[in-house]
Amino acid sequence: MKKIKRALISVSDKKNLRFLIKNLSKFKIKFLSSGGTYRKIKSMGFECEEVSKYTKSPEILSGRVKTLHPKIHAGIMSIRESKSHRDELKKQNYNEIDLVIVNFYPFEKAISQKKNHSKIIENIDIGGPTMVRAAAKNYHDVTVITNISQYEYLIKNINQNKGGTSLEFRKKAASMAFGETAYYESLIYNYFNNNYSNKFPKKIVLGFNRIEKLRYGENPHQEGAIYSSKYLGLEKLNGKQLSFNNYSDIFAALQISKTFPKGKGTVIVKHGNPCGISVHNNNTESFILAHKCDPISAFGGIVSCNFKINKTLATQINKLFFEVIIANGFDKNALSILKRKKNVRLIDSKNYKISNGNNLISNMNFALSQDPDIKKFKNDDFKIVSRVKPSKKTFQNLIFAFNVCRFVKSNAIVLTNEKSTVGIGSGQSSRLDSCDVAIKKMNEFHNISNKEILAASDAFFPFVDGIEKLVQNGISGIIQPHGSIRDKEIVNFANKTGTILIFTKTRHFKH
Amino acid sequence: MKKIKRALISVSDKKNLRFLIKNLSKFKIKFLSSGGTYRKIKSMGFECEEVSKYTKSPEILSGRVKTLHPKIHAGIMSIRESKSHRDELKKQNYNEIDLVIVNFYPFEKAISQKKNHSKIIENIDIGGPTMVRAAAKNYHDVTVITNISQYEYLIKNINQNKGGTSLEFRKKAASMAFGETAYYESLIYNYFNNNYSNKFPKKIVLGFNRIEKLRYGENPHQEGAIYSSKYLGLEKLNGKQLSFNNYSDIFAALQISKTFPKGKGTVIVKHGNPCGISVHNNNTESFILAHKCDPISAFGGIVSCNFKINKTLATQINKLFFEVIIANGFDKNALSILKRKKNVRLIDSKNYKISNGNNLISNMNFALSQDPDIKKFKNDDFKIVSRVKPSKKTFQNLIFAFNVCRFVKSNAIVLTNEKSTVGIGSGQSSRLDSCDVAIKKMNEFHNISNKEILAASDAFFPFVDGIEKLVQNGISGIIQPHGSIRDKEIVNFANKTGTILIFTKTRHFKH
Repeated sequence: MKKIKRALISVSDKKNLRFLIKNLSKFKIKFLSSGGTYRKIKSMGFECEEVSKYTKSPEILSGRVKTLHPKIHAGIMSIRESKSHRDELKKQNYNEIDLVIVNFYPFEKAISQKKNHSKIIENIDIGGPTMVRAAAKNYHDVTVITNISQYEYLIKNINQNKGGTSLEFRKKAASMAFGETAYYESLIYNYFNNNYSNKFPKKIVLGFNRIEKLRYGENPHQEGAIYSSKYLGLEKLNGKQLSFNNYSDIFAALQISKTFPKGKGTVIVKHGNPCGISVHNNNTESFILAHKCDPISAFGGIVSCNFKINKTLATQINKLFFEVIIANGFDKNALSILKRKKNVRLIDSKNYKISNGNNLISNMNFALSQDPDIKKFKNDDFKIVSRVKPSKKTFQNLIFAFNVCRFVKSNAIVLTNEKSTVGIGSGQSSRLDSCDVAIKKMNEFHNISNKEILAASDAFFPFVDGIEKLVQNGISGIIQPHGSIRDKEIVNFANKTGTILIFTKTRHFKH
Repeated sequence: MKKIKRALISVSDKKNLRFLIKNLSKFKIKFLSSGGTYRKIKSMGFECEEVSKYTKSPEILSGRVKTLHPKIHAGIMSIRESKSHRDELKKQNYNEIDLVIVNFYPFEKAISQKKNHSKIIENIDIGGPTMVRAAAKNYHDVTVITNISQYEYLIKNINQNKGGTSLEFRKKAASMAFGETAYYESLIYNYFNNNYSNKFPKKIVLGFNRIEKLRYGENPHQEGAIYSSKYLGLEKLNGKQLSFNNYSDIFAALQISKTFPKGKGTVIVKHGNPCGISVHNNNTESFILAHKCDPISAFGGIVSCNFKINKTLATQINKLFFEVIIANGFDKNALSILKRKKNVRLIDSKNYKISNGNNLISNMNFALSQDPDIKKFKNDDFKIVSRVKPSKKTFQNLIFAFNVCRFVKSNAIVLTNEKSTVGIGSGQSSRLDSCDVAIKKMNEFHNISNKEILAASDAFFPFVDGIEKLVQNGISGIIQPHGSIRDKEIVNFANKTGTILIFTKTRHFKH
């Protein structure tokens, strides 16, 4: 095992530097550094040579060029067992550098703190990643450390190996190093790309940090983990560890509830589909109505309230079984009521924002990328095609129903009363079957007499039969995309039965 | 507009190099190069200075250290409008380098061609990415070209700008350059990571190349594109451009059909869900049976045959309407029959392989990552819990039904006769509703008298009611995960009715 003789250290995050230097110096390792790291090491009372003195090349261009020197990079990259490499080093009077410790100033921090483009650009580190990449490439002979979390393991490994490190340790460290450089580079690329608002560039390179490994994936025989590229804005206040399916449903629920008018509305999600939505003005009532839509499916589901939960509502919710309860905050009293159930996950989502980033589905070989379906349609995207015209209120209620469609897996049929769902048909490959499911749900849990029941379809009805079934079951207004060759028949049927019919310009498929 | 005086050129792909050099030399640009690029430029009869002569520093370590020199990097990174930078350059006798043209040897090629780990490692380019990154950082003053597809635009821009380039051009080129370095780095990282078979590392960095922009995403008001990280193995032989939903369904269909026994089986997919599956030994029969499962849903769907389509089957298929037909090849006659419909997409999938890469769902802020559900369960993962025992054949048929469940969106109920589906219930938040849907489909399209009908459920039945409904409708054997507190009641009911019941160790949720 070869001993480490010389270490090059350049760290943006100077935490635990003393621990590192103190322990490395026990093995008589010579330090090479520059700038702030150099000054810090000196101030702690240790010997350290400045890079510019070492290379006999001045630090120039406001620090842009410091370590980009053959004496540094030959020292890192020489193959120790190659006689010609050793001879070349000797001839040039270069020394081997056996340990490279570099961490970068986080580029996401540069972006978030500095609004000035040229300051962000100045932050792009050229020398640091080059040293890290050179050392990682030569991991057979060189140890590269890129994160302060590795210091302890490094010292332990050096102690075990009497001043050297094990090849296994170096290889693993090289892998982590390329993780850092790849991630760093992905951030820079995406920063540049965002400036062009090019959502579908020729190359996409996505970097994510693991938040946590999950107990398992969708099923116990699959593994799973959750990653993020930025702070998610979710705070867990109570309950068991979140599962893969919890996360999946939480994102689905928030994608819905965060589109409601400010401070209003409840959605209950089960298996990625909403099974009840209401944006009733009274918050407690909105929960009751969302739950009433399909109380059987709601059992064990996920509630997301687009408002702060108070004591009254907490008492209501606590009578029922949900896996996760999400809200834009909880009153103190509400929290203590809900916390009585130790397992129920309570999530504060007041800092969560809907992403307008692309939806991505991938199996690593391919990636399907698309804009999220968040476009808000304007009134002139809708055309009243029936003889009977809706009141302003009914018109708005129909648009509400159509907006719910975008969150329901296709084929989607959504039945509503006012701005609450009363029946949701989803996931059927035949639109008529979705009508059946929605109607069945409605009849099971609702008394619709004297109520205005409206229906929305995520895509056009290919035949009259679907709309026929809806009208026969008490629906008085329908909103749907146009596009069937039988559109005319459908309009005729609406007129014959006095049904309100609105055509939309586009659909809301969600498969 | 500042003129370009000096260009550093180092290209792995030497295509169109003559075009480039010839046009650049018209503006009296001085060339700087090394190795193969240097020799090539000289051999074409142009002047060119070798990097090692320019830096007065020899190329050492078998080429590992060539351009990592302050004279090169200060030349690239100096801020032209800064007097102190200009003074420093002058003092060191360094010159400005205004144009950097570098492309990398594709790392994916290195991986696929060189099986030797140390040769792959040797391929990691350190100097090249450093020059590209330095130039891209300093795009305000320097032009960076990283792909031969940019040569034409570069020359055009230089012509327009009388020997210089526009800032807009340089910025865009910098963005592309960081795309190249980020992508390059992601490949290296994933190569290292794969060596550890660590599917959930602390950081994931994923790189993809765009295959094509799609007409739109899931809906016309969304944009979409398809990307890949390697050759997909799909060849389109006929038909219109594939849509976002086509791709999505094609991957879903192949994920199913490629799990069938070699050379057997047909699946029809609609909206991401199978609406018919058969692995009948006779290939034409397997199509007929898959289609018969739910001919209404199959209309406009996607067929995937795990075999070569012959003339007989082509004639059958051609009578019906499908958007996409996938097969492991087509007989010449079959192809000419199917091509009669100009719009139908024919896909040869014989080179397509199922990925064992993680499934990833992301909105760019978060990424949920999991193992794919591809584990094959062994016989001892199943436990016969009923008094009536299945024959060996029935046992295998039940396992077939359970395997189909993994492809059906939850809650999934799959009814089969032999190894063909006769009813599929999917996407319901109540398991009982999925039973209803599956039974309804079965009764609509099948005469089940004197046939052995088996059922599989992707998760356990919470109550007896589901299994009760199945048995009442002629199902004689059921396979399901255990886990309900009412499992005992369910076993009792099976025994009371002489139903075969198999418990599985784990479930097949797919939301």
